[in-house]
Amino acid sequence: MSKVLIIGAGGVGRVVASKCADNPDVFSEILLASRTKSKCDVIAKEVGKGRIQTAQVDADNVPEVVALINSFNPELVINVALPYQDLPIMDACLETGVNYMDTANYEPKDEAKFEYSWQWAYQERFKEKGIMAVLGCGFDPGVTSIYTAYAAKHHFDEIHYLDIVDCNGGDHGKAFATNFNPEINIREITQNGRYWKDGKWVETKPFEIKKALNYPNIGARNSYVLYHEELESLVKNFPTIKQARFWMTFGDEYLTHLRVIQNIGMSRIDPVKYKGVDIIPLEFLKAVLPNPGDLGENYTGETSIGCRIKGLKDGKEQTYYVWNNASHQVAYQETGTQGVSYTTGVPAMLGAKMVLTGKWSGTGVFNVEEFDPDPFMAEIGKHGLPWNEEFNLDLEV
Amino acid sequence: MSKVLIIGAGGVGRVVASKCADNPDVFSEILLASRTKSKCDVIAKEVGKGRIQTAQVDADNVPEVVALINSFNPELVINVALPYQDLPIMDACLETGVNYMDTANYEPKDEAKFEYSWQWAYQERFKEKGIMAVLGCGFDPGVTSIYTAYAAKHHFDEIHYLDIVDCNGGDHGKAFATNFNPEINIREITQNGRYWKDGKWVETKPFEIKKALNYPNIGARNSYVLYHEELESLVKNFPTIKQARFWMTFGDEYLTHLRVIQNIGMSRIDPVKYKGVDIIPLEFLKAVLPNPGDLGENYTGETSIGCRIKGLKDGKEQTYYVWNNASHQVAYQETGTQGVSYTTGVPAMLGAKMVLTGKWSGTGVFNVEEFDPDPFMAEIGKHGLPWNEEFNLDLEV
Repeated sequence: MSKVLIIGAGGVGRVVASKCADNPDVFSEILLASRTKSKCDVIAKEVGKGRIQTAQVDADNVPEVVALINSFNPELVINVALPYQDLPIMDACLETGVNYMDTANYEPKDEAKFEYSWQWAYQERFKEKGIMAVLGCGFDPGVTSIYTAYAAKHHFDEIHYLDIVDCNGGDHGKAFATNFNPEINIREITQNGRYWKDGKWVETKPFEIKKALNYPNIGARNSYVLYHEELESLVKNFPTIKQARFWMTFGDEYLTHLRVIQNIGMSRIDPVKYKGVDIIPLEFLKAVLPNPGDLGENYTGETSIGCRIKGLKDGKEQTYYVWNNASHQVAYQETGTQGVSYTTGVPAMLGAKMVLTGKWSGTGVFNVEEFDPDPFMAEIGKHGLPWNEEFNLDLEV
Repeated sequence: MSKVLIIGAGGVGRVVASKCADNPDVFSEILLASRTKSKCDVIAKEVGKGRIQTAQVDADNVPEVVALINSFNPELVINVALPYQDLPIMDACLETGVNYMDTANYEPKDEAKFEYSWQWAYQERFKEKGIMAVLGCGFDPGVTSIYTAYAAKHHFDEIHYLDIVDCNGGDHGKAFATNFNPEINIREITQNGRYWKDGKWVETKPFEIKKALNYPNIGARNSYVLYHEELESLVKNFPTIKQARFWMTFGDEYLTHLRVIQNIGMSRIDPVKYKGVDIIPLEFLKAVLPNPGDLGENYTGETSIGCRIKGLKDGKEQTYYVWNNASHQVAYQETGTQGVSYTTGVPAMLGAKMVLTGKWSGTGVFNVEEFDPDPFMAEIGKHGLPWNEEFNLDLEV
């Protein structure tokens, strides 16, 4: 019986709150807080089953977060606000001695740079304080990292090749929209690609490596190598990996829109003076694009995310594919939001349960593949994200 | 020897000011005014030949314009500010009894509606005051209207078919930029198309009618029927016209960019709330896109704009094509701006000369095809926009 503070009331916050409310045996008290309290109130009303309290907090403001933590006294803070806010929330957890969890790594506002260095630098301080920080407990990073840990524990002596494959085979019916915060999404996919090969990073141009990969129940989709944050921790934690790549599907129309957004300057993250106000074009674009949280109602189709792994088991080559398919419609019917938020929010709830029930424990800063994957893999299906596995496939990649 | 007030310090204002400064026999004193005086100062310094005074004025503010007119006492105000400002400047001219000229018709800020109704409504008031307003004295409208009047005067008894063909065969080397104010440009070309046919307007979807037309010295270019304001006055002033269309060239990449700009909501002209400020997406886009006035330096190629006319002369079918080709590089070398500003600004200067020298006279509100085209056609070549004509062509359209 534990108290949890959830910060962030976007699509993911909605799913985490809904799922925590579904599990009163673990989450005895739930407080949902964000910059705009009314967004929390809507979530509490729509999916809170009468079990969610709400509060206002500016997550950029450490003293405000500290005060909120001290007044509520949770055992864990689940941060599903913006990646910019990871560090202030970690600072507040350190100051109050409360465990921390997030679903996406910190990035500075003024440069598109995705790496764990800033958060890993908290290692000693979290240890000294006797608390834990769990980084990246969404789907990818999160479930994909746990899939890899599960494969390493049960099916491989050495993992050599890892391809994380992320397909959104859904259709939201809009000319253009991003599936999560467009600012974060566009920053992420317009950077150079990068993958791990023989002990070092190989840089690619954005969308340079393209392959039509087949996804279960979806079919062939153009997939592109891009950098994704879990690669950094996975190659560190599984040092036998010779090659690790992250693939994501994009339709031609999506890429055309993205190219134009860049050409016209709307992906810029430096401020432009307008009517005397400094405006960051990408932030303003976010205000004009459809709200990802509103895409759910007419969203059809499925996401399919998994790990395709080659390596050695008992001296022989082994191939293994583990994945989840999630339906946008089912996600919407259950939580009122679409599949991409759903697949991120469910693992955050379950990771929180692992921490609060002591299945995952320790002091310091952790990536999720460092914990025992078994209790997580045993439960994730019943919370809405069942997984499938196949051996001895022709893995294409 | 006359005093002229030029309002507007964009690319067109630069050309008008430069050209007026070249003709001291007509323009004895020149005052260039805009919202930002420093922009006027730069123009005066760079192309003013020591003959241009500058001032600050908010052209939306009638009392401010009235005060400026009263202090300078010009015989003519040349309005090359934004189309939104046509009416306040006309009001100021009415109040002070000074002649008025512009290059583009008024449009309200909150809807994309292009028609002369608002300005034609000033007819009686300008007559009563004993002054004249000359509407649309740029290239198109402007020179194209005068070409038509010239054709009607010398080469046709009846004009039946008129195609105004506007090709920008230039290359500015940018992924995307508009050749004049992007806000006005995008508003204009994203509206439905419209052309005149047998006594009424036929509406089309944007870019619905497409043809590869040949342009002199440029070749074949995809051209699209769109509505352009001079059609409204030309079919009124030349009632024998059975069909009148306006064609403009667009490259596929330009159209792709435009489609995406619409899809992502950046062409919206209704305000979006951002950080508590009302921001009109299209206006903000203007702040992010390249400044059309800065395109000149690397702009290569030519524009080609003209009229392709069919009709009757002495009972026989006659075809006639009259056009100008202008080089972006020549325009830049002479005035420091590109061809689209140049082709708009030169006719405004010459129209002003027509008014100030009494070649064009009258009281009330006029479109330029209502004046005698001959003195204008006799001079426009030596000011930088020579024209060519051909008879008995296969006109394609």
